[in-house]
Amino acid sequence: MQTKEFYWKERVHIYDTDSQGIVHYAGYYRFFTDASEQYAKSRFGLNWPLVNDKVWFVVVESYARYRMPLRLGDEIRTYVNAATAGSKAIEFAFKIYRNTDMVCEGRIVQVAIDKKAWKAVSLPRSIAARISGRTVKR
Amino acid sequence: MQTKEFYWKERVHIYDTDSQGIVHYAGYYRFFTDASEQYAKSRFGLNWPLVNDKVWFVVVESYARYRMPLRLGDEIRTYVNAATAGSKAIEFAFKIYRNTDMVCEGRIVQVAIDKKAWKAVSLPRSIAARISGRTVKR
Amino acid sequence: MQTKEFYWKERVHIYDTDSQGIVHYAGYYRFFTDASEQYAKSRFGLNWPLVNDKVWFVVVESYARYRMPLRLGDEIRTYVNAATAGSKAIEFAFKIYRNTDMVCEGRIVQVAIDKKAWKAVSLPRSIAARISGRTVKR
Amino acid sequence: MQTKEFYWKERVHIYDTDSQGIVHYAGYYRFFTDASEQYAKSRFGLNWPLVNDKVWFVVVESYARYRMPLRLGDEIRTYVNAATAGSKAIEFAFKIYRNTDMVCEGRIVQVAIDKKAWKAVSLPRSIAARISGRTVKR
Repeated sequence: MQTKEFYWKERVHIYDTDSQGIVHYAGYYRFFTDASEQYAKSRFGLNWPLVNDKVWFVVVESYARYRMPLRLGDEIRTYVNAATAGSKAIEFAFKIYRNTDMVCEGRIVQVAIDKKAWKAVSLPRSIAARISGRTVKR
Repeated sequence: MQTKEFYWKERVHIYDTDSQGIVHYAGYYRFFTDASEQYAKSRFGLNWPLVNDKVWFVVVESYARYRMPLRLGDEIRTYVNAATAGSKAIEFAFKIYRNTDMVCEGRIVQVAIDKKAWKAVSLPRSIAARISGRTVKR
Repeated sequence: MQTKEFYWKERVHIYDTDSQGIVHYAGYYRFFTDASEQYAKSRFGLNWPLVNDKVWFVVVESYARYRMPLRLGDEIRTYVNAATAGSKAIEFAFKIYRNTDMVCEGRIVQVAIDKKAWKAVSLPRSIAARISGRTVKR
Repeated sequence: MQTKEFYWKERVHIYDTDSQGIVHYAGYYRFFTDASEQYAKSRFGLNWPLVNDKVWFVVVESYARYRMPLRLGDEIRTYVNAATAGSKAIEFAFKIYRNTDMVCEGRIVQVAIDKKAWKAVSLPRSIAARISGRTVKR
């Protein structure tokens, strides 16, 4: 049950839902974003996806697989697992739980760029060093 | 400094901002919604704006006045002050603070309706009773 | 029936709705934004709210009054009426119609600022000149 | 250049962007949703994802790959290619173009369900029949 991983708790709000009575599919990315921002705040001390005046991270890929619907007021925990993806990117893998049910899983991949030149750059060392040995092939 | 009022703390996320580098004006209503849902959860024990199988609340008016911009990572406290507005409506007044600066104030007004008939009904007593004596003329 | 005013047509999408089966109250500001951006594109030839490298417009006030619910697939027309509000601001007034029913009305007020200094500046002449003689007191 | 495929044109709005000055990654799903709703309106005559009082479609998977950033005011065309995915699902594949540049591609997979029982059901014939012979293995 992943007890050692980082997770972020929150509630489903009315604006997360749509007229099917459940959370709108694109709304899960809000939960992914919240969890990755909190992860980065806690692990790297950064206002993610901004690193400094030169470097920030931009999303190059996103994916979600929906297993069970979520409804207004549901309490969720979004687990985050980060890995380097080559020398310039980070992959965040997410699993969202409501109690013991895994309701959604997915990922976002973010590449470090020089924000002026808008070109990919190497992962800042301070970040690469704090990400577990795990790496993802791309 | 309103220390006795209910407030809800949260952080500004990347999706709250727009390309002007600040929180998008409509995004403040997300903060208003979060705070009123938490207020209702704590005071009424409800998954606001749903009361029961028959009654829920719908928004009939919203207003915001923006005083200072908010940016990614800002920590805010949204203060909530609820009042009855006639026999069928509630008015939530909000003030958003970043540290000691009041950055935004506004309100939403919600009317109790019979969700099948979609007609206004009297405020449920359990709710009216828990709202401070204060009332707003409309 | 306001036939000479500018209006913008669009459909209500699933993401505009919430679990009450109707458009979420904050979603109407998306319609207001769409209509004002199209108005400014057509009247001023600008990517509103950006004017040039120095000046852009920021929202200082927003208001909406909801009269009838909107649902998925509804076709709407958002009428825009712009006025100067003092020497530095524009007020956009909106009325949203579904067929002949006025379902929502509201406004947003935007102030011209120097984006570097983040200080209010006079309305650019090219904009002020193209706004009808009408002016709003503030 | 896919001239025979269905596409939907729209502009990037200020609320689609975030403080990195580009469209927020989750915002592209709004473009996907718009295009699939318009596709279904035009091909099936439906208020997608609703089919009738019994059946509607829910999203079980979403994916996007971002190739180039989009900015406020950009004019885009979202191409839609639909295929059956087994007997109960539809896969919509999307490619978003700005002029001749393909800026984003992705997909959403939707399963037909009985909305009362919340169980997967066979694709309605009227829909299956109107989807090109193409099918996707899952």
